[in-house]
Amino acid sequence: MAEAQLQLVARRVRSFPDFPIPGVLFRDISPVLKDPDSFRASISLLAGHLRATHGGSIDYIAAQELGLGCILIRKRGKLPGPTVCASYALEYGKAELEIQRDALQPGQRVVVVDDLLATGGTMRAACELLGQLQAEVLECVSVVELTSLRGREKLGAVPFFSLLQYE
Amino acid sequence: MAEAQLQLVARRVRSFPDFPIPGVLFRDISPVLKDPDSFRASISLLAGHLRATHGGSIDYIAAQELGLGCILIRKRGKLPGPTVCASYALEYGKAELEIQRDALQPGQRVVVVDDLLATGGTMRAACELLGQLQAEVLECVSVVELTSLRGREKLGAVPFFSLLQYE
Repeated sequence: MAEAQLQLVARRVRSFPDFPIPGVLFRDISPVLKDPDSFRASISLLAGHLRATHGGSIDYIAAQELGLGCILIRKRGKLPGPTVCASYALEYGKAELEIQRDALQPGQRVVVVDDLLATGGTMRAACELLGQLQAEVLECVSVVELTSLRGREKLGAVPFFSLLQYE
Repeated sequence: MAEAQLQLVARRVRSFPDFPIPGVLFRDISPVLKDPDSFRASISLLAGHLRATHGGSIDYIAAQELGLGCILIRKRGKLPGPTVCASYALEYGKAELEIQRDALQPGQRVVVVDDLLATGGTMRAACELLGQLQAEVLECVSVVELTSLRGREKLGAVPFFSLLQYE
């Protein structure tokens, strides 16, 4: 059942060589979102994993299916009010992430969700921000993981889970 | 019932003067997403409106609740493969939007969803992109509408619906 759902997701991912710069093989998940069945399957699989792993102990996450609220971590300059900031290196380029200072109370438990894990720079910066707010990161999850970039190692002791792995 | 749901959403919106530039009153919907009840209510209200207005005639949208697929319209340079592009003026600044050329077939019916309607520049550019792909825009919807900026007028004959209106 989960295997059939995963196939629904996997067969929708497209690959574009040399985007956005030469040498990068871009894994495009927009067809996953476009197809209602694979869209639903990807959320259901991530939610199922988190439910099985953490039960009722998560306070916030990005998946409405679990009936939780969602905290935004965005590029610098997008969020109003007092924020905390972390800079990081991307697979191609550099960037800064921000979170609102009052987004979380110390000790609240969070799962970090992103579409894709490459070098892990973004995910790690997100964990750093959550650490600055003294939130507890239970796990990081993504739809796609580019294993050859070993981003998972950047996350240290934080568990990581992905639906689909590519070299 | 719908009124109570709307109150759940309305009471979570926060206002920040002079963000991101002096003179702009920024309506922040991140607390709507953070609270599971208001998050669910905002999606349920938008989905309810679209279901009542368009029934089964929509092909794509950004709301998973309707069991539809989601097409991404993003800032220029984010999407791989052949794209079409439209530039537009923001409430503060300028930008270009892009959609993948194969995102839609001619004649497919789409609802455009954004968190907030300000001057309508972004929403109008999105409609232009969808027009270039010969898709039919049934309606544009947002959570928040800044009525004094009259963005709705920029959308011409395309119907517009918002959950919450601010001057």
